[in-house]
Amino acid sequence: MTGTHMPKPLIAVTMGDPAGVGPEICLRLLADETVRDFATPVVFGDARLLARCARQTGLPPPKRILGEIEWEEKCAGIDEPAVLDVFGFDAEGFVPGIVSARTGAAGYRYVEKTIEAALARKVAAVATAPLNKEALHAAGITYPGHTEMFASKMAAERSCMTFFTEDMIVSLVTVHIGYQDVVPALTKERILDVIELTADAARRVRGRKPRLAVLGLNPHAGEHGLFGEGEEERVILPAIEAARAKSITVEGPLPPDTAFIAAKRRVIDAYVCMYHDQGLIPLKALAFDTAVNTTLGLPVPRTSVDHGTACDIAWQGKANGRSLFEAVKLAARMCAI
Amino acid sequence: MTGTHMPKPLIAVTMGDPAGVGPEICLRLLADETVRDFATPVVFGDARLLARCARQTGLPPPKRILGEIEWEEKCAGIDEPAVLDVFGFDAEGFVPGIVSARTGAAGYRYVEKTIEAALARKVAAVATAPLNKEALHAAGITYPGHTEMFASKMAAERSCMTFFTEDMIVSLVTVHIGYQDVVPALTKERILDVIELTADAARRVRGRKPRLAVLGLNPHAGEHGLFGEGEEERVILPAIEAARAKSITVEGPLPPDTAFIAAKRRVIDAYVCMYHDQGLIPLKALAFDTAVNTTLGLPVPRTSVDHGTACDIAWQGKANGRSLFEAVKLAARMCAI
Repeated sequence: MTGTHMPKPLIAVTMGDPAGVGPEICLRLLADETVRDFATPVVFGDARLLARCARQTGLPPPKRILGEIEWEEKCAGIDEPAVLDVFGFDAEGFVPGIVSARTGAAGYRYVEKTIEAALARKVAAVATAPLNKEALHAAGITYPGHTEMFASKMAAERSCMTFFTEDMIVSLVTVHIGYQDVVPALTKERILDVIELTADAARRVRGRKPRLAVLGLNPHAGEHGLFGEGEEERVILPAIEAARAKSITVEGPLPPDTAFIAAKRRVIDAYVCMYHDQGLIPLKALAFDTAVNTTLGLPVPRTSVDHGTACDIAWQGKANGRSLFEAVKLAARMCAI
Repeated sequence: MTGTHMPKPLIAVTMGDPAGVGPEICLRLLADETVRDFATPVVFGDARLLARCARQTGLPPPKRILGEIEWEEKCAGIDEPAVLDVFGFDAEGFVPGIVSARTGAAGYRYVEKTIEAALARKVAAVATAPLNKEALHAAGITYPGHTEMFASKMAAERSCMTFFTEDMIVSLVTVHIGYQDVVPALTKERILDVIELTADAARRVRGRKPRLAVLGLNPHAGEHGLFGEGEEERVILPAIEAARAKSITVEGPLPPDTAFIAAKRRVIDAYVCMYHDQGLIPLKALAFDTAVNTTLGLPVPRTSVDHGTACDIAWQGKANGRSLFEAVKLAARMCAI
């Protein structure tokens, strides 16, 4: 049967922190027949834990489980959703919903394994379930999040965090740094990198030349020097002009407060934002449940759910699998073109 | 007839910059019979210019025009929408849509006259049509906007800029200052003032004890000191605790990016935001056309349209009068209770 179909891209999916909603949204993904229309997902996680989660939540258990040796030998031929059983999680004393150094270390291990598989070109893209920062800290892991893990371990020369919804694409020039640390981090080169990465990804995902908007930093984009230290004229505008010289269609620096009004969103394909909340406040206000988080600039596409471990509802069968489904779908779309 | 009705509050309405959309939205307001259900608006502006605007746009001309002397004598008895003809605008060379030092000075004069009337308790509240910052500058007026004019001329001990929509109330701790100037401006006392002013106004407008949310400054509200300089713990949280000690229902500091998701908006009556774009990006993304801008803490309520002079469409009869209508309605509601 499969011989008559185009092979679908193999997408590595991390199970996330075992104590969070990761295991159950992975079970939902594996049981979803429609995902096979565009991808073959392989969950990098713990098979026994997934079976336990299936029993506890009433979700269907995984049908196909691969050991690491089988994976090494057969990965190119896998054509059905599967679990790659990654060893190393000590489940003693494990309580669903309670993160610990052990759950943090396990969640991190699944990420490491997907990065290895991606660098070895065994998978076409990676989608990640949520990790928990406190658990990572407890395990001695200092990366603030997936974005930094992937950028560092894949030795990306330049990368950026970008969010996709059906209607909006939002890229961040700076991410997990304090309010006061944003201005020193804004350079013409960094802003130009983010514009270029965003223009390229938006073109692939939207299937046409995109129209970009770059936001200002200060209220009213500085209002001709009235507010701020001229960051718009000194740093942001030169990056926009350099992008235009490379034939990118881009406007700005826009006054941030009116950049996301409905009339503007209809004509802008992608926004380049100077700091975390400038981009994520409107994105989450408008489309909290459907955004997919990605890292651009990596050797393979990397997408992620747009929610946390949600330990308060974990292992109760309540978690919505939509965001992981969308993450796998976008990953497939990004590597297909 | 009027003797059988409750007298409606007299609301002074500035005409705004003559070159902008102010004159035509004032004409629309005066011609709207429904406004009389809750207010008696008096437009502080230029009667000849309004007549000219009516001819050019096809909107109905004002029915009742008061000279300054008539106004001084009769104001308490006025029970129909009217124009108070404020002299002093030199219309020579005036071109609709083109702001100048003259239009800036005239627009400012209408504000001064309404402040005088409000301080003399001749009007119950003030609603303002848009001014143009460049025109004000050209006229040598250095206030960044209405908020600062009213706060200064009414000698308000404390005041803040607050936006109202049907679903959201958003107050700003800092407004028209540069990105880098926000942190030095954040003090426990200032944040507490804004919380108190907002709680009071929200109670009056919503008619019940409101639930407030105060936002953090850094991504994820600092994530327990991971990002930023501990502004949440050092400055914002003490203000929240002081407000709670005064029996105000308030939560925070909230992570800014998730503070405005739909589920949160349903339970929060009013948001206290640390800087201009933190509050105005989500407000305008969600409700651009219906927000009313107010200054809290003044001797009389002051509301404003939530749009600019829109000179590109001025004097063409295209401007939407909804925002000014809502501003007058909210002003009446704020002074009625």
